[in-house]
Amino acid sequence: MLAKVLSRLDDNLETALSRLFELLRYKSISTDPAFKDECRKTADWLVKDLQSIGFEASRRDTPGHPMVVGHHAGARADAPHILFYGHYDVQPFDPLDLWEDDPFDPKVKERGRRKVISARGSSDDKGQLMTFIEALRAYKAETGSLPVRVTVLLEGEEESGSPSLQPFLQAHRQELKADYALVCDTAMWDRRTPSIAVGLRGLVGEEVIIKAANRDLHSGHYGGVAQNPVHILSRILADLHDENGHITIEGFYDGVEETPRQVLESWQKLGMTAESFLNPVGLSIPAGEKDRSLLELIWARPTAEVNGISGGYEGDGFKTVIAAQARAKVSFRLVHKQNPQKIREAFRAFVRKRLPADCTVEFAEHGASPAIQLPFDSALISAAKEALSEEWENPPALIGMGGSIPIVGDFQDKLGMESLLVGFALSDDCIHSPNEKYDLDSFHKGQRSWARILAALAK
Amino acid sequence: MLAKVLSRLDDNLETALSRLFELLRYKSISTDPAFKDECRKTADWLVKDLQSIGFEASRRDTPGHPMVVGHHAGARADAPHILFYGHYDVQPFDPLDLWEDDPFDPKVKERGRRKVISARGSSDDKGQLMTFIEALRAYKAETGSLPVRVTVLLEGEEESGSPSLQPFLQAHRQELKADYALVCDTAMWDRRTPSIAVGLRGLVGEEVIIKAANRDLHSGHYGGVAQNPVHILSRILADLHDENGHITIEGFYDGVEETPRQVLESWQKLGMTAESFLNPVGLSIPAGEKDRSLLELIWARPTAEVNGISGGYEGDGFKTVIAAQARAKVSFRLVHKQNPQKIREAFRAFVRKRLPADCTVEFAEHGASPAIQLPFDSALISAAKEALSEEWENPPALIGMGGSIPIVGDFQDKLGMESLLVGFALSDDCIHSPNEKYDLDSFHKGQRSWARILAALAK
Repeated sequence: MLAKVLSRLDDNLETALSRLFELLRYKSISTDPAFKDECRKTADWLVKDLQSIGFEASRRDTPGHPMVVGHHAGARADAPHILFYGHYDVQPFDPLDLWEDDPFDPKVKERGRRKVISARGSSDDKGQLMTFIEALRAYKAETGSLPVRVTVLLEGEEESGSPSLQPFLQAHRQELKADYALVCDTAMWDRRTPSIAVGLRGLVGEEVIIKAANRDLHSGHYGGVAQNPVHILSRILADLHDENGHITIEGFYDGVEETPRQVLESWQKLGMTAESFLNPVGLSIPAGEKDRSLLELIWARPTAEVNGISGGYEGDGFKTVIAAQARAKVSFRLVHKQNPQKIREAFRAFVRKRLPADCTVEFAEHGASPAIQLPFDSALISAAKEALSEEWENPPALIGMGGSIPIVGDFQDKLGMESLLVGFALSDDCIHSPNEKYDLDSFHKGQRSWARILAALAK
Repeated sequence: MLAKVLSRLDDNLETALSRLFELLRYKSISTDPAFKDECRKTADWLVKDLQSIGFEASRRDTPGHPMVVGHHAGARADAPHILFYGHYDVQPFDPLDLWEDDPFDPKVKERGRRKVISARGSSDDKGQLMTFIEALRAYKAETGSLPVRVTVLLEGEEESGSPSLQPFLQAHRQELKADYALVCDTAMWDRRTPSIAVGLRGLVGEEVIIKAANRDLHSGHYGGVAQNPVHILSRILADLHDENGHITIEGFYDGVEETPRQVLESWQKLGMTAESFLNPVGLSIPAGEKDRSLLELIWARPTAEVNGISGGYEGDGFKTVIAAQARAKVSFRLVHKQNPQKIREAFRAFVRKRLPADCTVEFAEHGASPAIQLPFDSALISAAKEALSEEWENPPALIGMGGSIPIVGDFQDKLGMESLLVGFALSDDCIHSPNEKYDLDSFHKGQRSWARILAALAK
């Protein structure tokens, strides 16, 4: 039966692509309120698509962007019940002038010997979530049903901190509880080696606004006498790291554990070097903590990064003002048992301590999630390992993750479910950047991988 | 004769206002190329207005925005020849939402017991330059001519570093050379006390762009490993000042002289306090060098100020990127014999020294002018002192200036002319800020002041 499903996926790649293109054309940018309606339309499209595979599916409105929830009983009552999670929202596209093509007019493009799907969201996460849905569609077409019981949960706020997700999980605990959660929002180790992610960094997002004078001042009249909020903000941000790359916020490293030596050694065997990791983005020398290996830095160490800064005159030419305020968006990646709320408070205390008289500060929260550590081995992981080894040239690598997928913690804490994180993105997909793409191979073999994983779970 | 001219100015205030309003409606923002055509139209309006007073006037195109030049022989060949300078370009208006009224729809508004003209450029410098032109118009109407020989030079690039001015002065040396230069682009000491400015800080404008990765990166995937240009820029800007407010750029203070004690004492007598200077803008404690008095800081000490900073995601919500680049606009106010070109080079060396491997820096010039020190006493200043003392409640204060008027140096160096800097702006005019205004009293008594000064010079 699996062979027939796989062969159907091969035969139907073109129609699967045209469905994905429909989905990619929606500008479902969740962080910008201007695109609220587009997010709703995207959810409606997904509801219809799930219904066409026999799901009882509906759009579930929230105070933010809607969820899509679908249920399918599957062919056998004794098969496990799995919950699949993906997100249909995408990152903003700016700056537009760096895109080679319209970010919302998807195309298949030749890139050397590879074919890639170019569009915002092609990799993160519309292309990925459709690999799973296409695998379901092929099962349904070949067998009239699905090999396992499936609940699908598709979110529209992942790129903006998932504010509605926890309340939604809480309110629909019974409906969403399954045996396992499958998440498709991660990357392969390389083009030949799939991955299963077992460690995920958490995230705290903060916005800080420093205010001084009650209006912009002429820097000739007031320069040298009035507080300049850009100077103050610069000093605060400069203070975040010491000369060894360590973060200087008091108590920041509380809850950070040392990674076991055998794990560090297994990472070393993956053969990643600073050059191989950084050269593709035009860099070569690791920044950050000087006494840690590269994979440890991105998988098992916390960070403090300024994601945006603005203040004063930013247009063409020059304007000799002292700005009334300056602002920065700062995010912290957390590991192990670091407490997001404590990190937020410690950061705010750090800023306040450095604030001169005459100045005020305001803060805004932008999401918080703790880090997650999944088991290195389990029945779920064994099944996935076996299935992925059959599809790909190399067996899967058990990796850490630099980015955050907050829902995995919620699945663990709120619904008592173990998660399996398998995804087919590649490190050169430019997610969150101009010219995002998803390899056609990722899209195709991703579908086949899920078909194999579903077969393994149904055994 | 002077009495008749003064009384005509009083009688014609309403028509003078309506002429000023016409001028204020032009959006002559010189720093933004989008307004190039508006600048040309403004120049044409001024040409026509000068012609209506009997000037031989014309628009003189430059590689940037045009100059307006007009000549009038005056009534007597033995009277001095004066060159009047003003500028018709204005600062950008952003942020628009902080303006109470449309910045280009001038109005007279009641503010307490004062009447003010509200518009971008009302004070800086359209309202000011029209005080002089209205004085000329009244003389012409009363006497059929002007009491002195007058050349008018109106510039359209003062707010963007005056790139065309030096070449223009060089090319039209003979045409523009006069006995004295009169400049109306400065402020009163207070509402009862006019001023004559004798010290002007110079200005160096620099833009610095720090670049790291070849694209924006996902801060989850690359955070802690990739160089973050916002961090690097913050550290560089934070390093510009030490804990005592001294600027740390090597050689920065070369050419800075100590202000004579008697001058410092005369400034002290003006009674300015940190509170009286800073409270109106919501501040109370002087920033900058800790060991200097307030007036010394703004009149006789150099500064380094960041006028704008930007990098990464600045929109609503949050985007977890590490920016590919970050940029800042930085200006230095210079005093005494500081060399602008050396300051620029020293700043660039300062930045390059702090640039990590893997990063590059680009710089852009935004104007350079040395500081200027005019005599504390001369025939020109005596005449102006006498005239201003008759018009105003208090005699004029001889002051320093925090801002730059580069042309005064050019008049001195290139045309061998002494300048007289008299203006009627007030410290609460919000020039370079939202809600710029010019007091109706400044506009009216400013015209009367110029009439008196012209009479004194014609003696």
